[in-house]
Parts: sequence; C-alpha cells; structure tokens
Amino acid sequence: MRILIVGAGGEGGKAALRALKGRHEIITAGRKSGDISVDLTDSASIEPMFRKSGSLDAVVATAGHSHFGPLSAMTEKDFRKGLDDKLMGQINLVLIGLKHIADAGSFTLTTGVLDRDPVRGGANAAAVNGAISAFVRSAALEMPRGIRINAVSPALLEDSVARFAGVFPGHIPVSSARAGQAYVKSVEGALTGQIIIADA
Amino acid sequence: MRILIVGAGGEGGKAALRALKGRHEIITAGRKSGDISVDLTDSASIEPMFRKSGSLDAVVATAGHSHFGPLSAMTEKDFRKGLDDKLMGQINLVLIGLKHIADAGSFTLTTGVLDRDPVRGGANAAAVNGAISAFVRSAALEMPRGIRINAVSPALLEDSVARFAGVFPGHIPVSSARAGQAYVKSVEGALTGQIIIADA
Repeated sequence: MRILIVGAGGEGGKAALRALKGRHEIITAGRKSGDISVDLTDSASIEPMFRKSGSLDAVVATAGHSHFGPLSAMTEKDFRKGLDDKLMGQINLVLIGLKHIADAGSFTLTTGVLDRDPVRGGANAAAVNGAISAFVRSAALEMPRGIRINAVSPALLEDSVARFAGVFPGHIPVSSARAGQAYVKSVEGALTGQIIIADA
Repeated sequence: MRILIVGAGGEGGKAALRALKGRHEIITAGRKSGDISVDLTDSASIEPMFRKSGSLDAVVATAGHSHFGPLSAMTEKDFRKGLDDKLMGQINLVLIGLKHIADAGSFTLTTGVLDRDPVRGGANAAAVNGAISAFVRSAALEMPRGIRINAVSPALLEDSVARFAGVFPGHIPVSSARAGQAYVKSVEGALTGQIIIADA
C-alpha cells in the first residue's frame, strides 16, 4: 500500500511508522519534518499536501496538540487550542482527503487515553479525543467507495513519559511497538468505525 | 434551589423546565426568549448573564446547534458550526460559570443520542456530543468547592420528531417527561462526571 503518515515526527507517528514501514511505501508529512511540509492547523496547506502525495491507499494522522492545564484557570482561548489544532486538523484531513484517497482506502485518526481515563488538567484533550472518537463512529456510516475510518486510542506512550512527568499518576505506559500494531490493525485490517485501543 | 436554564425555549429546555419548576426557583436565559438574553456563541454575553442571575445553585444548559448534512459535502465551515455554537457555548458556560456558581452547585450540560447511536448526516453533531461527554467526565475531576458536573444525553425528543423527519430511522423518541427526569437526576441527585442517558 501507499500510506501517508501525517505527524510522523511525533511519538505516535514514530510508532505508526516503525510498524508499517518495510511492507508498505510510506510518505511522511509534518510541520517540522517529513517528505512533505504541512500544517494541519492551516487547512489551505492540506490540499497541496494531497496533490504532492499522489495516489494513497491509507492516510494515518498522528498529529495535533491540545491544551493542558487546570480547569479553574482554563479560558476559551486555551480550550480552542485543541479544537483548532488536533481536532480540526484531523477532521480537515478527512474532509479534504476524501477527494484524494483511493477506493477501499482507509483513514486512521489518533485520539488518546484521556477521554476514557481522564487526568487533572486534561479536560481539553479529553474533549478533543471524545470528539474524534464520535466523529469516526458516525463518519464511518457515510464513507463512499468502500473507504474505511478508524481511530487509534493509545495509552500514554513510553516515549512520552518523560514529557508528561507527574501528569498521568498510575497510568501504565504502552510501548511504541504495541501502539504501532493498532495502526497496523486499522490500515491492514477490515475494521471501520472503530476506536482501536492500544493499552499496555 | 435557584436554577438557571440556558436554552429554555428549545425542546430540551422545555423538558428540563417542566420537570424542575414548582419545586425550585427557575431563571431562564436564551437567544430569543427567557428572563435574561444571552447568546452562548458570544462569550462576552455570558459574564453579564451570570451577574444578572445572582446566586445560583444549578446551571442547566440545553442550548446549541450543530451542522447536519452529508459528510461528502461537509466543509470546515460546516464542522465549525457545532464547535462554535453548541460545544464552545456549553464549555464557556462552565469555564465562566465556575466563578459564579454556589458551593456544592451543579452544572448540567446536554449532549444527545448521536455520539452513541449515529445517523447519516450527523457527524458534526456526534463529534460535539462526544466532546461534551468527555469534557464532563474529565472536568468532574477538577471541580472545586463540591461543585458537580454531568451531561444529559436524550434520545430524539418526541417534540423534535417533526423537525427531524427521516433523519433518525428506527430511533424511538423519548417523551419530554422522561427526558426531564434526567435533568432532575443531575440537579437534585448526587452524581458527578456522568452522562445521564434519557432513552424511551
């Protein structure tokens, strides 16, 4: 398959890349690294990315940021960070990508653990994850041309533990290898409309 | 209790109002009707609403619109309708309301059936509902001063059936009276961080 991974420079993207490379032709895209430069927060950069990518059998999104911080200090601007970045970026990738992806292709989005196992400071990330999960379940009903859509919901990645020290008390991190298999299941398998959980 | 219902002119709002009035002092707010005028899509109108409301033991939000329409024709602008209106409106009500609500008070938001039982054309509404649900579960961890937060997720309301003709095949509508009891459970009960389902 010819697979585009958006956000391949991040921890989730590296997990997907390691698990899929070798057996497939991989094109990477990202804000700071990758074969193609794209900023998912700028929808005008998504259409050119697809034109440069050429024919694609699978699109994997592992990109996007949310706001982390105490609820009592959270502002509308803070909350909109997750909406404008991780949420709208991944949704735009689907809305625009639908015109470009091959018949029987697949979209794989990335949520995360925080909508199913919340932590302090994670209300924005939880909301974004919940939105992506529900979008996937609903959008699967309307995918044309045999196209599938799933989301991978990884636990805290082992590679992200240092960056989130103290934020996820008691959470058991998942290895990059296990998380990568969730992307393989979505891309190479037959599932659609599913949230594929990658826990340790 | 002194209860503010935002969106009391809509079908969900009427259900909450009928179930709560009599036993409580109710203040209503809305875009087109109610004791206080508020436009939840304009966060600048929320702070004045709380100042006019005075002391509140419960805030109930039944307001907000999403985009309905085929996924294949959906644009970023369409998708942002639900984010800017129903989602950001209800979230702002909590973020701003936290400074105004009484100790041991409660917030009750409103999601809907589409994140748990999706239909064609409902991907934006599903995403918004999923975001509100996940926000509620996460925000409950951080509520100060004994404040609670829940969401009511009603099935298609009997009062909304005519408006959504053909959109919800096979869905069994719920009565206003049953949906109203979900708001009573959230406001008068002890639950927090819960999605209270109101099915027929």
